[in-house]
Order: sequence, then structure tokens, then C-alpha cells
Amino acid sequence: MATSRPRSYEPYLSGHREKMLQRVQEAYDRFQETRTFEFPTWLYGPPKGTLFNVEVEDCPRFGDTAYVQFDSARTAFLSIDMQTDFCGPRGYVDVMGYDLSLTAAAIEPIKNVLNAIRGTDITVIHTREGHEPDLSDAPFNKILRSKIIGDGVGIGDMIPGGAGRLLVRGEKNWDIIDELYPIPGEIVVDKAGKGAFGSSTIHMILKNLGITHLVITGITTDVCVHTIMREANDYGYWCVLLKDGTGATDYGNHEAAIKSIKMQGGVFGWVSDSRRFIEAVNQNLR
Amino acid sequence: MATSRPRSYEPYLSGHREKMLQRVQEAYDRFQETRTFEFPTWLYGPPKGTLFNVEVEDCPRFGDTAYVQFDSARTAFLSIDMQTDFCGPRGYVDVMGYDLSLTAAAIEPIKNVLNAIRGTDITVIHTREGHEPDLSDAPFNKILRSKIIGDGVGIGDMIPGGAGRLLVRGEKNWDIIDELYPIPGEIVVDKAGKGAFGSSTIHMILKNLGITHLVITGITTDVCVHTIMREANDYGYWCVLLKDGTGATDYGNHEAAIKSIKMQGGVFGWVSDSRRFIEAVNQNLR
Amino acid sequence: MATSRPRSYEPYLSGHREKMLQRVQEAYDRFQETRTFEFPTWLYGPPKGTLFNVEVEDCPRFGDTAYVQFDSARTAFLSIDMQTDFCGPRGYVDVMGYDLSLTAAAIEPIKNVLNAIRGTDITVIHTREGHEPDLSDAPFNKILRSKIIGDGVGIGDMIPGGAGRLLVRGEKNWDIIDELYPIPGEIVVDKAGKGAFGSSTIHMILKNLGITHLVITGITTDVCVHTIMREANDYGYWCVLLKDGTGATDYGNHEAAIKSIKMQGGVFGWVSDSRRFIEAVNQNLR
Amino acid sequence: MATSRPRSYEPYLSGHREKMLQRVQEAYDRFQETRTFEFPTWLYGPPKGTLFNVEVEDCPRFGDTAYVQFDSARTAFLSIDMQTDFCGPRGYVDVMGYDLSLTAAAIEPIKNVLNAIRGTDITVIHTREGHEPDLSDAPFNKILRSKIIGDGVGIGDMIPGGAGRLLVRGEKNWDIIDELYPIPGEIVVDKAGKGAFGSSTIHMILKNLGITHLVITGITTDVCVHTIMREANDYGYWCVLLKDGTGATDYGNHEAAIKSIKMQGGVFGWVSDSRRFIEAVNQNLR
Repeated sequence: MATSRPRSYEPYLSGHREKMLQRVQEAYDRFQETRTFEFPTWLYGPPKGTLFNVEVEDCPRFGDTAYVQFDSARTAFLSIDMQTDFCGPRGYVDVMGYDLSLTAAAIEPIKNVLNAIRGTDITVIHTREGHEPDLSDAPFNKILRSKIIGDGVGIGDMIPGGAGRLLVRGEKNWDIIDELYPIPGEIVVDKAGKGAFGSSTIHMILKNLGITHLVITGITTDVCVHTIMREANDYGYWCVLLKDGTGATDYGNHEAAIKSIKMQGGVFGWVSDSRRFIEAVNQNLR
Repeated sequence: MATSRPRSYEPYLSGHREKMLQRVQEAYDRFQETRTFEFPTWLYGPPKGTLFNVEVEDCPRFGDTAYVQFDSARTAFLSIDMQTDFCGPRGYVDVMGYDLSLTAAAIEPIKNVLNAIRGTDITVIHTREGHEPDLSDAPFNKILRSKIIGDGVGIGDMIPGGAGRLLVRGEKNWDIIDELYPIPGEIVVDKAGKGAFGSSTIHMILKNLGITHLVITGITTDVCVHTIMREANDYGYWCVLLKDGTGATDYGNHEAAIKSIKMQGGVFGWVSDSRRFIEAVNQNLR
Repeated sequence: MATSRPRSYEPYLSGHREKMLQRVQEAYDRFQETRTFEFPTWLYGPPKGTLFNVEVEDCPRFGDTAYVQFDSARTAFLSIDMQTDFCGPRGYVDVMGYDLSLTAAAIEPIKNVLNAIRGTDITVIHTREGHEPDLSDAPFNKILRSKIIGDGVGIGDMIPGGAGRLLVRGEKNWDIIDELYPIPGEIVVDKAGKGAFGSSTIHMILKNLGITHLVITGITTDVCVHTIMREANDYGYWCVLLKDGTGATDYGNHEAAIKSIKMQGGVFGWVSDSRRFIEAVNQNLR
Repeated sequence: MATSRPRSYEPYLSGHREKMLQRVQEAYDRFQETRTFEFPTWLYGPPKGTLFNVEVEDCPRFGDTAYVQFDSARTAFLSIDMQTDFCGPRGYVDVMGYDLSLTAAAIEPIKNVLNAIRGTDITVIHTREGHEPDLSDAPFNKILRSKIIGDGVGIGDMIPGGAGRLLVRGEKNWDIIDELYPIPGEIVVDKAGKGAFGSSTIHMILKNLGITHLVITGITTDVCVHTIMREANDYGYWCVLLKDGTGATDYGNHEAAIKSIKMQGGVFGWVSDSRRFIEAVNQNLR
């Protein structure tokens, strides 16, 4: 919080502010010409891979179209929590009684994106939400609420005829579904929360890979996907959500989560879709 | 990520899992009787202050009513980002062209809650979003997007006839509005992001105060309020949002943000309102 | 960083400062009488378990003796990185050519403490340093330096006749040594760094258990043990190191690491030994 | 922690591990030829500024000499806690009764480095340890221990004839000493702990600047300097300490802290001195 004594830091502060605002002014002017959020080489350095533009919707205002420029070698594609527990039969979401078709809708678009980027220099990262078998990393209130909404069957419990204990690491229902299973060279991040930055090493992984931009898909749109996008955006990552590669337990929440990203000119990043992203990949990285 | 070799931890894991699931079972059984998420003394110890119940809505399912039990001395009331920049004339949200009445609607309910709890042993914490005058803690893409949506006037810029540079610490427009200004003994947390746990010392502050439960209000519902609630929930805090003490730049997003909290039996916590919370305070802490 | 405009927060700040300094004054006065850092019930609430005092050395000044009071049910005993890689044959430290007897010296005292506390309500937590088999969470410079000091055999490499890849999760050399292997109900935290708070869920685990005080042992004194103690101390945990339950690759560094904790009246916490801790446990928790 | 069921991730893990170990092998081979830890363009991309080598001592083994290569535009020079409270009369360290000459010894070397790098594209960051005037971000045990070692005068207290309350933001004794005061364009990070990554926005600041390498100086060697170096090293930053630009309240601890960095081929980074760093700057950035 601010401190108690009058001081003036203007002299030494101005230097950095002016440099930064100059960079912003240049990027702003470029945007007026090109409608493109260009890859900032002044910040990250010259490209490591191939630069390519992806069309994003309703930016800066609803109805507008703009472009985000990526450096393929500094881009990570995130497939969030595509686990049986969130989109498969007798998994966690199924047990809670939600319509699986809403979350399963994301499978095909994600599969198409994976087909397009596998073999390129874009990094693929899969996340899994789950807890240690001893539940030491699961908050008590989280387990309790899951048991109540599950009518007595919650996190850590085995469901009759189920594949294993719900949301527990190592169980079959917790693992990634076969259609989207990681292949050699892809990274898997296990997280204990809806978000990832506070409960996994994703911080270090993105840093170890030199990633600056994220392409985000997975489930559920308004819960884990949005939480991770919020965290990454706060840390300065450039985040683009592929809306058809996401899904939620409630369609209205899914729609609103997507709209919410677009507010304030992109308060959490940008929104595109699998078709536009794949098109950009095919045109530039093949 | 999970490891590559077969091992069996069952022997020593089971101990902790069974203890935890036993506690969950007890709380689950109590909930069936009382519809109350009781304060877990087995976890936090005997009460420090006064226990009181607050009615929450649509829990565990839409249409249901339940109660969350608080220990007043372990409860913090959060008033998030009630700054001129987010709800006042010529502030950041105003410059972006949004309807201020939507965010300003939260002022009166928050004021009423503050009147009710001031003088009790509930801790009051105000947050402010803002950046250092040198903008060193502001991501480049955040400043750029704000300048684009602001038609050339963004974070760190002075608006013609404005009170100061937008979202910059120390500026008049950045500070908390007069109606809700902190009084002696209340805590103010400055954060550089939409969330707080990754960009402030709120972690340490809540720990230094022994807080376990949070009552959340402020603006905007779908951005800063939701991000902080998600972070706190992931860390195991018991979070109740007072819906009329919040507001967003878009009403639909506000509504969906509230609904989203209620999914999965309370995926991010619970939802109540100022009337029900004040009633509980007046009946128990006076 | 501090902001650029004169403001006076004294009015509302004073409230909290005065309350805090009053609590400190009371504890200071009690310390003058009792030489004891009493468990602060005003902060954490009434005891959950049994209160007991442990004698600590060279506190507040070298040559002085004082006591730290624990609540058994809010105490966690940490056994840090007692893995073959750090104290066993053909592990990481052995490969680097250090004298194993220095780190192995900690085994017996830790074993004695475990024997004393198993069966009480003190929580036992073991940590392991290690990386994912794909090394995604291992910084490039860390792997490189290990390969250079290991004459071509570093993190992720298999040593001729070794038990597995060095510092890699799931390998035999990475696991906890048999003498100190966890038993049912004990918790194991895997961390990717020397510290734990930035690269594991220990934050959430300690919170989920309601822990306030830590008793710290393990290896190596000046590296992982000290880093975790520094992190925990910064977050407000009350940390007591049992010096004979630690060891380093260099005896002088071990000695200095212990002395360093005692500076400034306990800059990172306090120092005791296994004998004094076991004595306190036996006298109070049996 | 590791999970409970046998699984084999080898197929898809190998891909990333092999790529990483290949990069390490290349850097290892280069090191054999050049004794240099070259700037990894494969990871961070082509240089943004000027590459230059700094000689480091006792690396990989005691008695050896090696070089660390920096990209000037991705390098930050850290001056840690050069505040009156740590090296000036009637500050915190003085009140505790330590010999100021030990910490003040760092002033001249830091001044020389600042003179050398000001005007280059190396970023200068100053840190300050301190707490909010309301002490909300100060752990109770930290304040209490400071009051005991200060014979009744601790953090947040005003000393008779002192410049202000000890370690409190906004006070004269808390601010950076005149000899090393920041100039326009330099960044100041306020932290509430000995470390910085858990209690400040330094994470975001380094990311917003695209920093990969840190040159570290300040006080005290074994406390704040070492804690920040440990945190930064865990996150993958390349850290070089300039030993004569540091100082501690005890000379033996200072010496051991420096030696400890050199263990295991550089467990926390590397050690050089102001002369060697300034020489490298003058030869390459002028």
C-alpha cells in the first residue's frame, strides 16, 4: 500500500515511464495502420521461429477484426484439463449430472489444432487438474462441496462402476482422453487448482521454454480455462482463446466467459477459433 | 507431471486420505441435517471471535438455500477496486466509454455493509488496482490494449481535464472513492493485476491476520472480483460473494459471473447479498 | 514501489499499527519474564493440540537460551530431501565427488525424531527435490552446471552402474532412503527447486493442515534446507532448525548456515537440536 | 507428489528430454572449449543488445576460472537494500548493534558499477526491504524478534533521535542512501520479505523487461542478497554475484555465503567482483 510521507519520485521515474509509453505509442500507431498486435521484438528480441498473424474477433470493439502476431518458437498451445473427469462417462462432471456434450464439443477442434501444429516448432502443453492420492493438496471445502453436489460421491471417492477415485492423480478417469493423448515431446502439467500458476510449475516450464504467447483451449471455459487465462494475462503473457476449442457445464456461462475476454479491448487477451488459427498455421508453418 | 516408473504409495498415502475423507464425511452428514457449511474447528481450531451463519443462495443446487458459518475474528471483508478509475467520472472505465451506473451500483450496498461491520472484529480490506508511476509493473500488452480501446488515452496517460494519469498509483482517479474511503484500522492492498495473489502481499496479510473466510464485494464482477475469488478459492479460503455489492461493465457478464460461482455446488465459493450478510452481522455481532 | 504524490494515510493506518505493536509489546514483556516465544492465541486462536516449549540456543543473543512454544496440532516436522541422490552411494552428491558422511550424519537424528513424534498429532512432511522425466521443469542452466561439475554426467543422465537418472522423479536414486521412508499418514512434497514455495503445492498443503510452526531438518543445510526456511520465514511461519538433523557438502558452510539463522535475534527463525526437541516431545506429548 | 498407479510416460516424455539434453550436450562441449557459459540463443533468441563475457571465480571447481556471457539488453543489475536501515547511522542494523563498516563496505564497489553501466542498455533495479506504515505485511514473529534484539526498539518503532520508524516505507531511514540513490530510468522494487519473489512484483518487472541474467550486489550477503539469488536461480535466471559489492553483519557469514554459491559447480549461480564486471562493461559497451 502507498506510504505515509510526501516524496517526489518523478525525477527518476519519468525515465522508464517515457521509454515504455514511447514503445506503446509506436505499437499503437502500427496498430492503426495494420490492425495487428505485432510481436514486440524490442521486448523479446528478434524472432526465434516464424512470425504469423492470427485473426481475432471483436477487437478492439465488438464487430471489429484485428490480428495477433506470434513467433512460432515462442508460442505454446494449451489444452486444458481434457480429462475423462471433465468430458468423459463416469468422470467427475458426469457424476455431478452435467450434459457431457457441452464439454465434449471441444474435443474435435482441439484434435484438429493438434494435427495442424504437431511437427511445427509450436510447443504443446496439456494440463490436468487432480490431487495427490493422499488429498494433501486438496482444500477441505473443495472436497466437501464436491461430495455434496455429487450426492455423497466427491473428490477422492470411488464411484460404483467408475474407473477410479474422482480427480485423483494416477486414476484412469483423471487422465487425458485417448483422442487427445499427448505424443512424444509434448508437456503435461499437473495442477491442484482451477488455476495453474499457484499450484504447479507452469511458471518455470514456460520460462524454461522461452514462451511469450499462449493459444488456449480446453475445459471448462468459465472455470479452469478462464482462471489460467487470467493468471497468464496478469503475468504479461499474450493469450488467445480458441472459442470452439472450449466448453462449459452451462452454455450461457460459456458464452459470457468468451464475451468477458473481449471487454475493455481485450481485458484478458483475445478470442479466435480453431479454423482461423489452423489456417494461419498452414499458411505460414508448412 | 506424473512420473515414469511404477510405484505404490498406497500404504503411506492411505493414512492421510482416510483422515481427510472422514472429516469430509462428518461435515457432509452435518450438512444434511443443518444445510450449513460449519466452521471447521478440527482444522482451524476453536473460534477466536463469534460464530455466525450467513444464508447463501442456489446451493448446493439452483433453488436451494444453505448457510455458511463464519468466525468473525477470522473473517475479512474485501472491497475490491472501488476506485474513481472504475466507477467515477473521468476515470479509466469512463474513458473507455462504459456506463458508470453499472459499476457505481455497488457503492450503496458496500457502504451499508461497512456501516454494519465497522466496530466488530471483522477485518476490512480494500484493494486498489494500479501501477507504479514508472509503469515498471505494467505488462506492455496491457498498456497497449488500454490505449487502443481508449482511442489514444490509456494506462499511464493523462486525460484532458482528468484528475491524473489513468491507473497510476498516487493519482486522484486511482484512489478509493470518498463514500467508501478506508477509516483507521482498515487495510489497503495495492495490486498490479486483475488478481491480487500474484501481484501483492495479500498472501502475507491474510496470514498475518489469521483469516480463513472472505466476504467479497467490489468491481468489476467478472474481472477483478472474479479473479481474486478464484485465486483465494484455489488456496482454500472460504469465499462468499455479496452479489449486490458488485458490478460490471456489462450486465450480462455480471449475471453470468454470479451464476458461474454457483456451478458444481459452488465451484468458486458461495453467493449471498448485502441484506442477508448485514442481517447476520446485526443479529450476532451486536 | 512508493508512489509519486504526497498523501497522508496516518489517520487510517495508525489503527492497525497500534493494535499490532500492542500485541508485540505484550509478547515482548512476556518474553522478558519467561524467555519464551509463546504461541500467539490472539492470532491463531486457542490451541488445537498440546502446547509445549522447545529450548533454542543463542537467542536472542549468542550464549543466551530461550524457548519457542508450539501447538502440537499446528506443528509440521519437515524432513528435507533425504534422498539417495543427496546422501547415498551413486546418487547426485556422490557423483559430484562430495564426502557422503557429511550429509549422511543427519540420518540418525532425523530417525530419532521420527520415532519420537510418530503417533503424536505433529504432522510429518518429507520433501524430495527432483524433475519430471522430460526435464520440462528443470532450468537449462541448472542441468548444464550439473553436467559440468559431474564431468559429463548431470541431472537427467544415467550414471554407469547407477540406480537411475540423476534427480529425476520415479528413479530409485531420487527416492527417500529406506531408513527414513515415509509411513502411512505422512506427506511427501515433490519440488523442482532448492526452495519449495515457488515450485510445489507446499503453500496449499500447510494451509490445508492449519500449520503455523515448522521443525526443520534435512539436507543440505546451506542449500535446500536454508532456502525453504527462508521462504517459510518470509511467509510468517515459525521455524526451528534442528542442527544435528542437517548436513552439507562442506562443513564450514554447514556451520555458517546455522550461525546465520541466529543473527539479528533470529533472522530466519531459531536453532535447536534433536535431543532438546525429542525431550520436549516426550515430556509433553506422551 | 508422485502418484499411486503404474504408468509409462516414456514414449512422449523422451521427446522433450532428448531435445533438452542435446542442448545441454552442445553447451557442455562448448564449455570444454571456451570455459564460457554462452548466452543460449536457442532458448532466448538472438541477442537484443551486446554480448559480453564476465570472468567468474572458482568455477566449475575451486581454483578454476570460467566466463558467463551476457546480453546487455537482457541483463539487470540488482542493488539490494542499500538503505540507511541496513548500512547507515541510527538505522535498523545500527540499532541492533552491528558494525556498520561491514555492510557499508559494499557502497563504493556498487557506486563504481553504477558509474560504469549508467548510459548502457543494462537495466538497473534497486530493492528496498520495508513494511507498510500499518505493518499489515509484517509477520508478527518478525516484529517481535526485532524488538527483542533491539532491546525494546524494533520494526515500526521510532528510535530516540532516529530518522523515523524502523523498516517502515516512507521513512528517511528506510530509503536508499544518497550515494547510491536511483537516477531517472532506474527501477525500485519494494519488498516485504528478505526475498523478493514472494512479496513484490519483481516477477512481473523482470518479465516486462525481458531480463534473463542478473548481476547481484547489496546487503546483507547472507540474508536478503542470498535469498533473492536463491529465488531467482530456482526460476532459471542466470545470477552472478559481485562479492565486493556485498556485505553482512558478520564477516564469517559473508565469506561462507560466497563460498556456498560456488558449491556443486555453482549451485545458486556464479561469483565475480566489481573490477572484473566493470572491465567487461568498459571493453564491450563503450
